[in-house]
Amino acid sequence: MQIGVAIVGCGYWGQNLIRNFWQLETAAVAMVCDEDAACLERTVRCYPTVKATRHFEEILSDTRVDGVAIATPVSTHFQLARRALEAGKHVLVEKPICQTSLEVLELMELAQRRRRVLMVDHTFLYTAAVRRMKQLIASGEIGGLLYYDSVRVNLGLVQSDTNVLWDLGPHDFSIMDHLCDLEPRSIQASAASHLDCPFEDIAYVTVRFQNSLMAHFHLNWLAPVKVRLTLVGGSKKMLVYDDLEPSEKVKVYDRGITVRHDPERRSRMLAGYRHGDMLAPQLDTTEALRLMAQEFISSIGENRTPLTDGVSGYRVVRLLEAAQQSIEQNGREIELAEPVFARSVRTSRLAVSITE
Amino acid sequence: MQIGVAIVGCGYWGQNLIRNFWQLETAAVAMVCDEDAACLERTVRCYPTVKATRHFEEILSDTRVDGVAIATPVSTHFQLARRALEAGKHVLVEKPICQTSLEVLELMELAQRRRRVLMVDHTFLYTAAVRRMKQLIASGEIGGLLYYDSVRVNLGLVQSDTNVLWDLGPHDFSIMDHLCDLEPRSIQASAASHLDCPFEDIAYVTVRFQNSLMAHFHLNWLAPVKVRLTLVGGSKKMLVYDDLEPSEKVKVYDRGITVRHDPERRSRMLAGYRHGDMLAPQLDTTEALRLMAQEFISSIGENRTPLTDGVSGYRVVRLLEAAQQSIEQNGREIELAEPVFARSVRTSRLAVSITE
Amino acid sequence: MQIGVAIVGCGYWGQNLIRNFWQLETAAVAMVCDEDAACLERTVRCYPTVKATRHFEEILSDTRVDGVAIATPVSTHFQLARRALEAGKHVLVEKPICQTSLEVLELMELAQRRRRVLMVDHTFLYTAAVRRMKQLIASGEIGGLLYYDSVRVNLGLVQSDTNVLWDLGPHDFSIMDHLCDLEPRSIQASAASHLDCPFEDIAYVTVRFQNSLMAHFHLNWLAPVKVRLTLVGGSKKMLVYDDLEPSEKVKVYDRGITVRHDPERRSRMLAGYRHGDMLAPQLDTTEALRLMAQEFISSIGENRTPLTDGVSGYRVVRLLEAAQQSIEQNGREIELAEPVFARSVRTSRLAVSITE
Amino acid sequence: MQIGVAIVGCGYWGQNLIRNFWQLETAAVAMVCDEDAACLERTVRCYPTVKATRHFEEILSDTRVDGVAIATPVSTHFQLARRALEAGKHVLVEKPICQTSLEVLELMELAQRRRRVLMVDHTFLYTAAVRRMKQLIASGEIGGLLYYDSVRVNLGLVQSDTNVLWDLGPHDFSIMDHLCDLEPRSIQASAASHLDCPFEDIAYVTVRFQNSLMAHFHLNWLAPVKVRLTLVGGSKKMLVYDDLEPSEKVKVYDRGITVRHDPERRSRMLAGYRHGDMLAPQLDTTEALRLMAQEFISSIGENRTPLTDGVSGYRVVRLLEAAQQSIEQNGREIELAEPVFARSVRTSRLAVSITE
Repeated sequence: MQIGVAIVGCGYWGQNLIRNFWQLETAAVAMVCDEDAACLERTVRCYPTVKATRHFEEILSDTRVDGVAIATPVSTHFQLARRALEAGKHVLVEKPICQTSLEVLELMELAQRRRRVLMVDHTFLYTAAVRRMKQLIASGEIGGLLYYDSVRVNLGLVQSDTNVLWDLGPHDFSIMDHLCDLEPRSIQASAASHLDCPFEDIAYVTVRFQNSLMAHFHLNWLAPVKVRLTLVGGSKKMLVYDDLEPSEKVKVYDRGITVRHDPERRSRMLAGYRHGDMLAPQLDTTEALRLMAQEFISSIGENRTPLTDGVSGYRVVRLLEAAQQSIEQNGREIELAEPVFARSVRTSRLAVSITE
Repeated sequence: MQIGVAIVGCGYWGQNLIRNFWQLETAAVAMVCDEDAACLERTVRCYPTVKATRHFEEILSDTRVDGVAIATPVSTHFQLARRALEAGKHVLVEKPICQTSLEVLELMELAQRRRRVLMVDHTFLYTAAVRRMKQLIASGEIGGLLYYDSVRVNLGLVQSDTNVLWDLGPHDFSIMDHLCDLEPRSIQASAASHLDCPFEDIAYVTVRFQNSLMAHFHLNWLAPVKVRLTLVGGSKKMLVYDDLEPSEKVKVYDRGITVRHDPERRSRMLAGYRHGDMLAPQLDTTEALRLMAQEFISSIGENRTPLTDGVSGYRVVRLLEAAQQSIEQNGREIELAEPVFARSVRTSRLAVSITE
Repeated sequence: MQIGVAIVGCGYWGQNLIRNFWQLETAAVAMVCDEDAACLERTVRCYPTVKATRHFEEILSDTRVDGVAIATPVSTHFQLARRALEAGKHVLVEKPICQTSLEVLELMELAQRRRRVLMVDHTFLYTAAVRRMKQLIASGEIGGLLYYDSVRVNLGLVQSDTNVLWDLGPHDFSIMDHLCDLEPRSIQASAASHLDCPFEDIAYVTVRFQNSLMAHFHLNWLAPVKVRLTLVGGSKKMLVYDDLEPSEKVKVYDRGITVRHDPERRSRMLAGYRHGDMLAPQLDTTEALRLMAQEFISSIGENRTPLTDGVSGYRVVRLLEAAQQSIEQNGREIELAEPVFARSVRTSRLAVSITE
Repeated sequence: MQIGVAIVGCGYWGQNLIRNFWQLETAAVAMVCDEDAACLERTVRCYPTVKATRHFEEILSDTRVDGVAIATPVSTHFQLARRALEAGKHVLVEKPICQTSLEVLELMELAQRRRRVLMVDHTFLYTAAVRRMKQLIASGEIGGLLYYDSVRVNLGLVQSDTNVLWDLGPHDFSIMDHLCDLEPRSIQASAASHLDCPFEDIAYVTVRFQNSLMAHFHLNWLAPVKVRLTLVGGSKKMLVYDDLEPSEKVKVYDRGITVRHDPERRSRMLAGYRHGDMLAPQLDTTEALRLMAQEFISSIGENRTPLTDGVSGYRVVRLLEAAQQSIEQNGREIELAEPVFARSVRTSRLAVSITE
C-alpha cells in the first residue's frame, strides 16, 4: 500500500520534492498546495493525477494524505507543521526546521504525543559523501577528531528575509553535528553586511567542544567563485570533502604529525610529518533527495524515528540561534547549555540509519 | 661601488638570502655568521670569497659590512638588530621582525637616530601577484573593499618554539595590511593545540576595520592538503589569489551583487547577481626574494625608506600581539589603539615603491 | 499558433527532447512513438496530453504533427527520416544523421524537393561555449588557425552496435567543422579494440586542411577519468575549451610565439614567447538543447534553413566515413573529394544563425 | 675513493649536472668544459675547486677524469662521446643520445670493446612517479596493457636546430619503452610547422605493438597551457600520471569495463562499467637527476650496466628516426624491424634497477 503525501510550497525546492516522491513506488503524491495559482497549474500539467489546492486546510482534512512535506518560507514552518501534526499527519519540514529551538521542542513534544513522524530535510546527510565519511569516522579509522573546517561560499542571491547564517549554515551545522557526534560547548560568530542590506552576507562561526575539537565555518554570499570544501583532521587520518568534485568528493589522507618529547630536553617537542597514500573511495550515485524522501516514507510505514528527526533539527536550530546571538553581541562567545536531548538517546537512534 | 652585506644565520632561509645577495651586482656578500661550524663550512665551499665567522662581533667591527641581514630564530632578532644598528650597520630582519611591538618601536627609534635603514623581509609584498593586486586595489578598479579572506594551511612541521599564528600569520598580515591600507579597529582569534603540544597548531583570526571591512585568516599546520587561497571582495570587482597556481595566480572577477530597494515595498530589498568576465593578468616571474634583496641594497644606496620598513614590521607585530592576547582570553575581541605611526605618513612613503 | 511535434524514440535522449519541446511556447508535443509500451506509459504519465503510439505510420498520418524528431538507433535514422519527409513532415534527426553520406544526400534532395526542413541535432553548436568560440574566431580575434586538438575520453559503455568513432566523433567533428570553416583535404585514423569486442574503443583521427591547419581527435571509451578538452591555436591568440569546467569553459590566451629571421645568419630563426593575459568570458547558461529545439521550431515557422542543416549533417558523416575507411586500411591517409556542397553556399546560410 | 667527473657543456642543463654531481659524496667534479669563456668563469666562481677548460682534449688527457658527462647540442653528441670512449673514459650523454641509431650502435660497440660505461640521461626514468608506475605494471597489478596515451604540450621555445619530435619525444618514448617493455611493430607520425619555421612545432605519433597495445603521443610547442598527462589503460586497473600535480602525480584507478556475450543473442555484447576506488600512492621526493647522477657513478664503481644504458638510448633514437621518416612521408606507417638488441637480454639487465 502506498503512503499518501502532500507537498506544501511548489517553488524550486517543492518541485524537487514532488519529483522525488512521485518516483517512489511506496508513495503517492496526493496533493500539492501553494498560494500561487499559476504555480499550481504548472505543477498539475506535469502531474495530472495530483490534486491542487490553495487552502492548507484541504490537505489536513483529506484522508488520502498521510504525510505533509513543508517547503514554504522558514517563517511559516512552525505554524504549518503544528497544524499538520495536530491534524494527525506525519510531517517533513525543509531546513531550518523552525526559527527558534523552543518551536522545535514544541513540535517534538506534539509529534511524540500524537505518535507521528517529525522529520527535517537535512539533505546532505543522505549524500554518499557524508554517509561514507560517517562510516569512516564511526569505525575509528580517522581516529579522534582534532578539527572540522568548512567553507561554503559563492555568489549567492542576497535574500530579502534571512541572512547568510540561516541560509547556508543549516547545511554545514547538520553535517558537522552528524559526523562529530559530540556535544558543543560554546559558539562564537562574526558577520558583516554590505550593500546597504540589513542582512549579513558573510559569517564566520567557531564551535568549541568539550574536548580540544574545534569546528569552524565560513559562510559567504559574496564570493566570486564557488567553494564547498570541508577538512576533517583526525589523529590517525584526515578527510578532504570537496562537494564540487564530480566524482572524487571524499579523499582520505593517511597523513598526520607525530610529536614526541625530546629525550634530552623534556620541554622540547620533536615533531615529524607522517606522509602516506591518499584514497578516494568510489561513491554510489543515488540522488540524496531520493533517499531522504524514502526515509520519510519508510519511517511512516515502519513507525520509527527517521535519521534526521526532530532532535537533528533542534540541534541545528540551537546552533543557529546561539551563532545569531553571538553576531548581535559583536562576536561574544556564547556558552551552550546541556541540550534537552542527551546524546546517548540520540546515538541509539542513529543505529537505525540507512544502510550503505 | 658595491654595498657590503653580512648574513647572520645560515639555515634554510639564510642560504636563500646569501644566494640572492650574491647574484646582485650592486651587493657584495662579505661575511656570514652562524653558531654551527659545519654549516659555515658548507657555505664557504660554495661562496669561497665570503668570510665566515661564529662571532657576531666580528661582523659589527668589519668595515666592509654596510648592511646586516638577520635570519636567526625570532627570539634573537631584537638583540642582534639592536646591536647591529648601534654599530652603525643597516639592518634587514626576517619576519616577524620582533617578538613585541615595543621592541620594534625601539629599533625604529634607534634606526632613525642613527640614520640607518631598518627593513623587514615581508617577502610576499615583492611577489608579482601581490604587486599586481596592490595596483588593482590602489587604482580603484576593485572598488571599496568588502572583505578579505585568507587560508594558509598545510601539513607543517609543528615547531618547538612558536605557534602557527607567529609562524604563518606574518605572511598574511603583511599582505593584508599592504593591500587594504586601512586602520584595523579590533582583532579576535581562536586557536587550538593538539597532540600534547604546548603550541597552537590551528588558528582563526578576525580583524575588524573602521568601516564594514572584515578580514579573516585561517592558519593551520594540520591540514592534509596545501591551500594558499585569498579572496578579496570589492564593491566593483573581486580578486581570487591562489598562490599554488603555477601561472594564473591572480584572477580578477567582474562580479558582484547589486541591491536596490523594491519600489513597491520599501522594506524589501531586490538583489541581483552581476556576472562578468574573469581576467587572469600575465605576471612577471622575477623571484620576489631577489627584489627584496635589491630593495635593501637600494634603500641603503639611495638613503631612503624601504617598502617594508620598520612601520610595516611594527604593524604586523601589533596584530600578532593582539591576536595572541585574544587567544589567551578565549577569543575575546581586543580593541586596537590608534597606531603610533599614522597612516598618512606611511602612505606617502609607499609612493617610493618598486615600479612594476 | 503552435507547431506540432512528434518524438520518435523515448529513450534517454528522447526524454530530453520531449522535455525541451514541451517547455517551448511555440511548440506542442502532439505525439510520441516507441516500440516499448512501458516506456510510452511512463512518458504519458508525465505528459498526459500527449498521444502515444507504437506505430510510426500514425504519426505520419496525424495532421497535428508538423515536425518529427527522430531519436532512435542510428541504423533506423535514414528510413524513418525518408518516410517522414515523404509524408510532408519537417524532420529533426539525432546525430549522426545517417550511416552513409549517400543517405544524407538523398534526404537533402528529398527535403529540398518537398520544401521541408531537414535538421540534425548537433547539440554542441548551440552551447554558449561553442557560440562564443565561433564569434571569437569569425571576428578575426584569434587570427589564422594553426591547429585544433580535441580530447573526449571517459569510461564509456562499450556499445553493442557502434564503435567509439561513430559514438563520440560526431560531437567533435561537428564542433570543428563549425569553428574552422575550412575544407578538409585528407583524414587519417588509427583505432584499436580490446576485450574481445568487435568494436573499436579507442581512436585517434588526424584531419589535414588545404593550408597548414591540422586537426586531431582523441576518442576513448576506456579512460579512467573524464576529459573534454579542446585546444585551438591561432596566429594571434589561443583558446582552451574545457567542457568540464562548471563556469569558465572557454579561456582566451593572449599568447603565442614570434619568429623572425636572425639578421646575421639568414638560415637561423629567432623565436620568442609572447605571454599575455588570459580572459574567461562570462557565458550565458541557457540549455543548449532548448536552443536547438527552438531552432527547429523557428526554421519551420520562418521557412528557413536551420543552423545545423542537412549540409552540416552531411559534412560530419563524410568525415566519419573517411575515418572509418582509414581505420580499416590500417591508418592509410584518405583524400577527401571536393564536397558536393560548396563552402560559399553554406557560409551564407550560417549568417542566419542564432544571435548571441 | 671518489670517481672523477668532467661536465662538457655548461648551459642550463650542464649546470644542473654539475650541481648534482657536486653534491654526491662518491663523485668529484674535476673539470668543466665549454666554448664560452664567460660561462666557464661563472661556473668556477661557484665551484672554485673545479678546473675549467675550453679544450675537450684536456679532459680526455686528464687522469683525474674517470667519466665524462656530455650536455652539448645534439649534433655534437656522437663525436664527443666517441672520442671520450676511445680515450678510455666512461660516458654519460644527454638525451637524445645521438642523431641516428647507427651512431648509437657504434658507440655501444665501442663501449663494449673498451669495457666502459655508456649511459644516456633519460631523467624521467629516475623519477618517483615513473619508478612507481614501473613497479605497478611489472607486478601485474595493472594487468595487460591496453593503451598508452601521452600529452606533453606547452608554449615552448621554437628551436633553431631541431623540431618538437626530437625535443620532447625522447622524454615520452623513453618512459613508454621502460613501462611497456614490449616490442613496437610500427610507427606513424603526423606533424605540422607554422610561422614560416622550417621545424615542426606540433606532432602526433602512434606506435603499434605485436599485441593490441597502441601508444600515442601528442607533442606540441604551441599550446597556451602546459599539459603533462599520461593515461595507461590496463585490463585490471588504469593509471593517470599528471606530472604537474605537486604531490599526487600518480593515480591508480580500480576501474575498467567488463564485456560478456549476451547469452540470448551471441552476436550481441553486454558491457558494464567497473567503478572502484582511486589510490594516489605517496611518492618519495628525491630529485630524479640526483639518482641519475648516482647511477652513473655507481655503474662505474660497480663495473655494471646502468639502468639507462646504450640499449635504452638506441631504442629511443630508433623510434625518433622512424617517426621522422613517417612525417617526411606524409604519415605513412613505418614498419620497425626486429631490434638489434633483443628484449630478453634487456629485461634481465633491468633487474639491476635502482631499488625503491
